[in-house]
Amino acid sequence: MNTADLGLPVDVPSTALFTDQYEFTMLQAALRAGTAHRRSVFEVFTRRLPEGRRYGVVAGTGRVLDAVANFRFDADVIAFLREQDIVDSATLDWLASYRFSGDIQGYPEGEVYFPGSPILRVEGTFAECVLLETVILSILNHDSAIAAAASRMATAAGGRKLIEMGARRTHELAAVAASRAAYVGGFDSTSDLAAGFRYGIPTVGTSAHAFTLLHDSERDAFRAQVDSLGRGTTLLVDTYDVAEAVRTAVEIAGPELGAVRIDSGDLLLVAHRVRQQLDELGARHTRITVTSDLDEYAIASLAAAPVDAYGVGTQLVTGSGHPTCSMVYKLVARARGEGPDAPLEPVAKKSVGGKASVGGRKWAARRPDAEGVAEAEVVGTGPVPDGLVHHQLLVELVRGGEIVAREPLDVPRERHRAARGALPMSATQLSRGEPVLPTEYV
Amino acid sequence: MNTADLGLPVDVPSTALFTDQYEFTMLQAALRAGTAHRRSVFEVFTRRLPEGRRYGVVAGTGRVLDAVANFRFDADVIAFLREQDIVDSATLDWLASYRFSGDIQGYPEGEVYFPGSPILRVEGTFAECVLLETVILSILNHDSAIAAAASRMATAAGGRKLIEMGARRTHELAAVAASRAAYVGGFDSTSDLAAGFRYGIPTVGTSAHAFTLLHDSERDAFRAQVDSLGRGTTLLVDTYDVAEAVRTAVEIAGPELGAVRIDSGDLLLVAHRVRQQLDELGARHTRITVTSDLDEYAIASLAAAPVDAYGVGTQLVTGSGHPTCSMVYKLVARARGEGPDAPLEPVAKKSVGGKASVGGRKWAARRPDAEGVAEAEVVGTGPVPDGLVHHQLLVELVRGGEIVAREPLDVPRERHRAARGALPMSATQLSRGEPVLPTEYV
Repeated sequence: MNTADLGLPVDVPSTALFTDQYEFTMLQAALRAGTAHRRSVFEVFTRRLPEGRRYGVVAGTGRVLDAVANFRFDADVIAFLREQDIVDSATLDWLASYRFSGDIQGYPEGEVYFPGSPILRVEGTFAECVLLETVILSILNHDSAIAAAASRMATAAGGRKLIEMGARRTHELAAVAASRAAYVGGFDSTSDLAAGFRYGIPTVGTSAHAFTLLHDSERDAFRAQVDSLGRGTTLLVDTYDVAEAVRTAVEIAGPELGAVRIDSGDLLLVAHRVRQQLDELGARHTRITVTSDLDEYAIASLAAAPVDAYGVGTQLVTGSGHPTCSMVYKLVARARGEGPDAPLEPVAKKSVGGKASVGGRKWAARRPDAEGVAEAEVVGTGPVPDGLVHHQLLVELVRGGEIVAREPLDVPRERHRAARGALPMSATQLSRGEPVLPTEYV
Repeated sequence: MNTADLGLPVDVPSTALFTDQYEFTMLQAALRAGTAHRRSVFEVFTRRLPEGRRYGVVAGTGRVLDAVANFRFDADVIAFLREQDIVDSATLDWLASYRFSGDIQGYPEGEVYFPGSPILRVEGTFAECVLLETVILSILNHDSAIAAAASRMATAAGGRKLIEMGARRTHELAAVAASRAAYVGGFDSTSDLAAGFRYGIPTVGTSAHAFTLLHDSERDAFRAQVDSLGRGTTLLVDTYDVAEAVRTAVEIAGPELGAVRIDSGDLLLVAHRVRQQLDELGARHTRITVTSDLDEYAIASLAAAPVDAYGVGTQLVTGSGHPTCSMVYKLVARARGEGPDAPLEPVAKKSVGGKASVGGRKWAARRPDAEGVAEAEVVGTGPVPDGLVHHQLLVELVRGGEIVAREPLDVPRERHRAARGALPMSATQLSRGEPVLPTEYV
């Protein structure tokens, strides 16, 4: 497995090493103390949304399930842990047969969340649950940040097509996960072929300025592209003079030209001029795609412009100002004693500096008002009040170590659209504000 | 290769699909037009530093070399491109035997850079060079953003130990690259075992609040940890009452206790109190590690506190406000004509809205003043002035497709320390300002 010489982007064959060292040292100490097998409940939640955001979007759940299923220790990983003296041999023996055998419930992917929402609940022995902390948080914190930005952009785009184009602005594999999260949040396609390969997301892309510059003239470049890709292609028209490029483009491709792309300048102004010019040239069905450092505000500001599609890069894959969420993975209850029947007790760290946790195994429900619009995120321990039973948010994801909730990516995408649609109207405001639902603890 | 069912984090066996679709459609059109084999020069540069930053840090170069070496198209990738109808069969035939055979020069990893610095220069045919755009930018934009944040934190830490702890706040594989970039930027160790496994970075970690909460008392938890990990371990002392925890910790481990970790509260105040308490208890050599949403400013504000090590997470792996760089990959020159002797001509997109490029194949040198302190980044085309010949920045990385500049990770780490040390004093100011060196074009 030591493929360092090959230089492949990853030579970690399982997800077991996407883990902070302290998970393993805690395991070793707990195994020795005899406390490692106490029944335990860990929950993922966030104490606050990113500043000014109205709602969060759960994304990455499907990837979490994959990560849990593949969290195992083959000989090479065990050898590494031994050579580096990370844990003792008793712990290595225990790890060699590791398979998560507990239960996971959580908000289904695409669902929205609020401060305190128990987004994921992992139950089993302390030993088997504690090890999963880092990889679960990595996935949910990253993917949910991207999905939240995507969701805001989808609102701003108001039904126009959104293309994810951010691969070059983030880690090459984070980019693949970002495409996936963007799709859940409402994007339609991606430029990233690895995302198409891995997740089946529709891919798009035609040409860059380099293609025009390669040729002796813009005319040569457009002709080469149309000859090869057909009249339905998208020609990039801002390498030199936009008006001249549009004229040349329609001359070469005819009014069947698929689209033109504008990547610089005052997009609002240029889009209007290009639309007018295309219409005058008879290319009434030629679409206009704009790209160039767009974010949800720029997209919203183009609502009145004759734009058909937005390509979004940097601001999408960096979460539009919030590249991560602040989700944490906390022990909220554990058995006092080692037996399977030892009663669960709620536990929580002392609150200092806002790092408060609410102990106890939780349920959550979204309470609708008389019109069916959500009015509160209700989180509690103990029995669920009768009126809320049908509005519970957590679903079963893993039962006794078996994944029970795999789903194609269109399902969380549609789920997100529905969940966002059931929020109060203020959820669609891009301006900074408070979460649109209060979290009530009962 | 379709391991989707296994759910491994990556099932892309080469780096060839970390690529925007338009690279392939440009390739197809250029192959058909007969222009694909024109000799071409692409350069990576950035038009500006992130707002307020004084210098940039080149990181990821080693990963770029790996990515170039592994950029190839096996049968599964070709089958995907065919099934999805991304390119025609002539292009697929060309791709099947793809190996980069050109030359790459660039700023060596760890070097600092400024607006306009030609950070990487890729030369070969248009076809072989254009395909590398996305993966090269992904790596450099991500890794350099992390390294720049790490470098500022290293300056702020003033020689105290820095531990990278951000895995849970970013994509699980971006985290591995982030550990690597942080190490180049000046960090000493990481909590991320995958980074230790892949890059040999020293790993550290002991325990979390969950470990204390698992046990019936803090005393039980500390005893379990010390029994298992020895007196030299680091005990986390802020789960309940810090003063009581410190007393218990020294009682159990004795004055040989390795360290205590504080993860909440007013770190300046708490560190002073804990130091005093430890000293009074005779634990004069017990170190203090602080963690809790640190960034370079928080680290600097603790300069007068008795702190021995800083653990940094979120702000490090998200680039401390700048999670990506704005590096671009632009065609700056290409042959007019197809033969190997066709003369190179500079090319550049028309400047609109700040998207200016300077055409032509470039050199770069850092001009020192009489005291040897850098005073300007000089970038030019054509012959290098005599006085600058010995201060040139680009080094050979790939020659005729062969990597010629692999180096162990300590080399760019030390290179960065030296390069930062040769900058004007204002480079170490954390406050916002202009780049510490002007870029002069000659």
